Amino acid sequence: MSISLSKRLFDELNSLVLIDPHTHINPLSPASETLADILGYHYYTELAHSAGMPREEIEAPGLSPKEKVGRIVEGLGHIDNTVQFSWLLEAARELFGIEVERIDPSNWEAVYDAVQAKLDHPDWEQQVLALSSLEAIFLTNDFDDPLDGFETSRYVPCLRTDELVFHFARPSVRERLAKCASADVQTLGGLAQAIGQRFEHFTAHGARACAISLPPNFAPHEVGEAAAEKALSAVLQDNENADDKDKATLGYWVFWQLAKHCDQFSLPFDLMIGVNRSVYPAGVFQGQDLYDSRVSLIQYRELFNSFPQVTFPISVLASVTNQELVSYAWIFPNVVCNGHWWYSNTPSFITGDLNARMEAVPRNKLIGYYSDMYKLEFALPKFNMFKRCLARVLAEHFVQSMGWSETRAVEFGRQILRGNVETIFGFEK
Amino acid sequence: MSISLSKRLFDELNSLVLIDPHTHINPLSPASETLADILGYHYYTELAHSAGMPREEIEAPGLSPKEKVGRIVEGLGHIDNTVQFSWLLEAARELFGIEVERIDPSNWEAVYDAVQAKLDHPDWEQQVLALSSLEAIFLTNDFDDPLDGFETSRYVPCLRTDELVFHFARPSVRERLAKCASADVQTLGGLAQAIGQRFEHFTAHGARACAISLPPNFAPHEVGEAAAEKALSAVLQDNENADDKDKATLGYWVFWQLAKHCDQFSLPFDLMIGVNRSVYPAGVFQGQDLYDSRVSLIQYRELFNSFPQVTFPISVLASVTNQELVSYAWIFPNVVCNGHWWYSNTPSFITGDLNARMEAVPRNKLIGYYSDMYKLEFALPKFNMFKRCLARVLAEHFVQSMGWSETRAVEFGRQILRGNVETIFGFEK
Amino acid sequence: MSISLSKRLFDELNSLVLIDPHTHINPLSPASETLADILGYHYYTELAHSAGMPREEIEAPGLSPKEKVGRIVEGLGHIDNTVQFSWLLEAARELFGIEVERIDPSNWEAVYDAVQAKLDHPDWEQQVLALSSLEAIFLTNDFDDPLDGFETSRYVPCLRTDELVFHFARPSVRERLAKCASADVQTLGGLAQAIGQRFEHFTAHGARACAISLPPNFAPHEVGEAAAEKALSAVLQDNENADDKDKATLGYWVFWQLAKHCDQFSLPFDLMIGVNRSVYPAGVFQGQDLYDSRVSLIQYRELFNSFPQVTFPISVLASVTNQELVSYAWIFPNVVCNGHWWYSNTPSFITGDLNARMEAVPRNKLIGYYSDMYKLEFALPKFNMFKRCLARVLAEHFVQSMGWSETRAVEFGRQILRGNVETIFGFEK
Repeated sequence: MSISLSKRLFDELNSLVLIDPHTHINPLSPASETLADILGYHYYTELAHSAGMPREEIEAPGLSPKEKVGRIVEGLGHIDNTVQFSWLLEAARELFGIEVERIDPSNWEAVYDAVQAKLDHPDWEQQVLALSSLEAIFLTNDFDDPLDGFETSRYVPCLRTDELVFHFARPSVRERLAKCASADVQTLGGLAQAIGQRFEHFTAHGARACAISLPPNFAPHEVGEAAAEKALSAVLQDNENADDKDKATLGYWVFWQLAKHCDQFSLPFDLMIGVNRSVYPAGVFQGQDLYDSRVSLIQYRELFNSFPQVTFPISVLASVTNQELVSYAWIFPNVVCNGHWWYSNTPSFITGDLNARMEAVPRNKLIGYYSDMYKLEFALPKFNMFKRCLARVLAEHFVQSMGWSETRAVEFGRQILRGNVETIFGFEK
Repeated sequence: MSISLSKRLFDELNSLVLIDPHTHINPLSPASETLADILGYHYYTELAHSAGMPREEIEAPGLSPKEKVGRIVEGLGHIDNTVQFSWLLEAARELFGIEVERIDPSNWEAVYDAVQAKLDHPDWEQQVLALSSLEAIFLTNDFDDPLDGFETSRYVPCLRTDELVFHFARPSVRERLAKCASADVQTLGGLAQAIGQRFEHFTAHGARACAISLPPNFAPHEVGEAAAEKALSAVLQDNENADDKDKATLGYWVFWQLAKHCDQFSLPFDLMIGVNRSVYPAGVFQGQDLYDSRVSLIQYRELFNSFPQVTFPISVLASVTNQELVSYAWIFPNVVCNGHWWYSNTPSFITGDLNARMEAVPRNKLIGYYSDMYKLEFALPKFNMFKRCLARVLAEHFVQSMGWSETRAVEFGRQILRGNVETIFGFEK
Repeated sequence: MSISLSKRLFDELNSLVLIDPHTHINPLSPASETLADILGYHYYTELAHSAGMPREEIEAPGLSPKEKVGRIVEGLGHIDNTVQFSWLLEAARELFGIEVERIDPSNWEAVYDAVQAKLDHPDWEQQVLALSSLEAIFLTNDFDDPLDGFETSRYVPCLRTDELVFHFARPSVRERLAKCASADVQTLGGLAQAIGQRFEHFTAHGARACAISLPPNFAPHEVGEAAAEKALSAVLQDNENADDKDKATLGYWVFWQLAKHCDQFSLPFDLMIGVNRSVYPAGVFQGQDLYDSRVSLIQYRELFNSFPQVTFPISVLASVTNQELVSYAWIFPNVVCNGHWWYSNTPSFITGDLNARMEAVPRNKLIGYYSDMYKLEFALPKFNMFKRCLARVLAEHFVQSMGWSETRAVEFGRQILRGNVETIFGFEK
């Protein structure tokens, strides 16, 4: 009973046109050009590597797309149990009309060619958007992105600020900022002005959010003028060799400035909490980051209290932080639950985490999902995975256990999938 | 199958008369006087506030009960998905005979009046106790409560000790203690004597437990005489401006005294572990506390070893601590699992946490549930939520997976719901 | 539907002959001699004690096996809900043909005698191996075990190294090492040589793994020669009174040597992460250890990066660390998930943890289960518990949700139960 009910709810939710509120799409090249763009997604290279394939084989320089695919395929046999692999099969089926159970040395070339035939269509981008029911897609733009050459109502800019907070000690970052903002970033005043100029630039181009990913030990707080001045001097003088404390102090100061500007420009500030970069430096590209799950939202207490008018859509990397996210969103008006990130983006974690959110957080504070994709072809299978989890929670908790009607359950599902993205990021008509 | 089985087990469990082993009931005014007492429960005000309603609107001074209800109702639309809201509907249906799916601007006045008609009955307190199958209800009494004017066999006193451990630096607390205990609390000896006098007073009035809520960083240990003397001097001299270390040292000394007296007076010592107070100071009344889930029961190692004769019914605030609670209760004879507290008191956390307890902890060490209520009307819906979770674990784990008979499952459920409350808190005939 | 599907999958998995990759079997006395060996398993003594039976009663000196059983039986009534107790009933039924729902004062003597009749069979060891479908069983051998007198293809040696890392300050440990390795362990060079000799001895006797259990605060790193020299001197001079820092430094140096030798000898290094010893020193034998769940695999970052050729099968004590294990195994080629250890070895934790692993970790990196048993009679019920959890995940996630065929699900289950044990520990033909 619960399975057919889930299926009905999924079908209803599946008719919705979506806004994807966080991706890494390049708006100048949003769709894949070859199957290598799809199989080159870090999930496949890192899992194939983890299962035994040497990095050198996957990342050998000068490989043609077809050679690269041929190599990665050799590793897929060990990962065909993973949900990440199932995204590939679902994309093959739903987008490319290819029905296979495995992709292996016996069939990959046929798959490659069949995929290529679709990708070569001049309107493939439109096709995949239509097949995926995607109306708008948030980007993750460098602070000095000119935001030119694409339709910002479809590809919605979002100001990514990791570099400003964590790499301001790199002269190249400072030079890029000085240049794009036409500002002197050697003083706190100039730096604040440069940040402000970037917010103007981004909001003028339709940006809907500011975003940052944060390591587990990050604990933002307001930094006094004098301490910030001292830290800035040290960083300007010693660049990346500056003392870690000075770099951190300046980073907190910059972070606080970002929050102030989010307040001033009415931009939500997406916090993606908990990642340690380069834990496995010998890993494949984008397959090196992990985490320490000992993190707490109490570290953000001062931030949430200091900026009551800023909405903070929060993603947590590890499921053990999900209950804190539920509780903080239940208490703080400006804390919102945002999607299921990376290592928590598998069905069992999504289902448990989502259930906990949906039973205790106000319904207008739940942003269901974002795809985090690099290429358009992944929205469909990733959102479908989420919709199945959502349909299951609606079926088992809301319809069966709480006695809701299916209509009411679908209405709540729609708000989570789309309605709240509109209200929280300002898409209301 | 599992759903109808769960339902049968629920119905069996539902026939039980209950003892509620932890509440905040005022025995001189146990039932609600208006719907505002019900809708004023912090779950509704904090969730409505979190969903967007300004605190000022909810807590404006001089609001009549009806005006207050009218305002909170405006915020209920955003929280009708929450299990907390479902308590309201279940209370309306089961206690007041009102069957509605939502409470909104269109129907709240009718609901208000229908509820009022019931509340105005002179025997409403008896009615709600009977409808809720409640026989006895534990209180949470200030240390200087005279414990007068109510029947202590129905409303069972419990000595709440947070103020003594955490606020002894406040002159007002010391004065209240000195006065009620007729003791000089300026010396360690006098203070110990005052504490002893309070235990005598409470046990003479039928108290069944000593209780305290504790922050995540609390790590109790025995404090030497000299260190305690020094800390007491500092606190007596500087009051709340005393050094944090001195305040903490004295707090640990007082806490150890409480444990000693629990031992001497054979009182269980309820530990409610993990809350940070006033994390969101701009929140509504009682809607300001949150937590840092990075807490471990290893912090209580010395305590559990030092007082083998004291039973410690333990509640943990976050579900990530539940496995530790299971393991510590499995090993330490004096550690007992106690209910599902606050932010862990929602169905998905209860079900998972309870299942883990029931499959690995001796059956005589599981106190199923307490309502934590402020007004009698909440026992029924909160206990019913728990009983549904309990029935589900009994159905799926014990009957279906372990092959137990339904009779045996119900017998275990009864022990968890009621039997262990009797044995652990000394209600045996 | 899901229940009958699970049952079918269980039956398929149940036909497999197993290798048990971690036990505490004594190969010179692998099976129980009386029911006291079975009921004396620490799970029963510690749970009976936790439920109220004084340690003195259980561990009184000079008790005959029958007296001991008679006493423990008195405590079983309080623990008949636990899964640990269910192992006893399943062993009674499947190994001894005894069908009872409880073991209590009314029937225990009959059970005792019926069990004894079986145990007294001269080929009982062969019978229980056959009934349990066990082909090979890993041991946990002290570093100075002569590894004589048993068939190492059936009872596979495994070098347990806790003492070398954590108790090298004990003169007795050093003396035993010096003696068995015929080496001088007063210098780093001699110590390294002694360790090497032990690896030679063990691999010459068919050892398949090196293993160690580690406390939550362990954070291994390479120790420089000078620091190690200084630490060794301090430890040699002051033995167990040496400074904790020196003992820890030397321990890390020894640990790093073990990893180097695992590399050199191509032995997997089993890490069992997270236990605090003697948290409850007044507990029964082997019922004194607990944990602090605040541990992270980030503590092993340097180790995993430094030894890319060493396979690390990792067990975590608490389920809150499971997601980190999933993520680290998904990224690091040399990190492998290993079984469900101790306090996480109950159905609800196994099922959740296993599901998370199976949906995101390459299929060749999942070692399903080990029994951790001290006597052969426990392999059957413990593996059966695991197989039920495995069948459930295969049924619900893989067949029902992902649409796999039952054949494909069973094939994956077999790899987890047996295939990966072969490939990871080098049993391939």
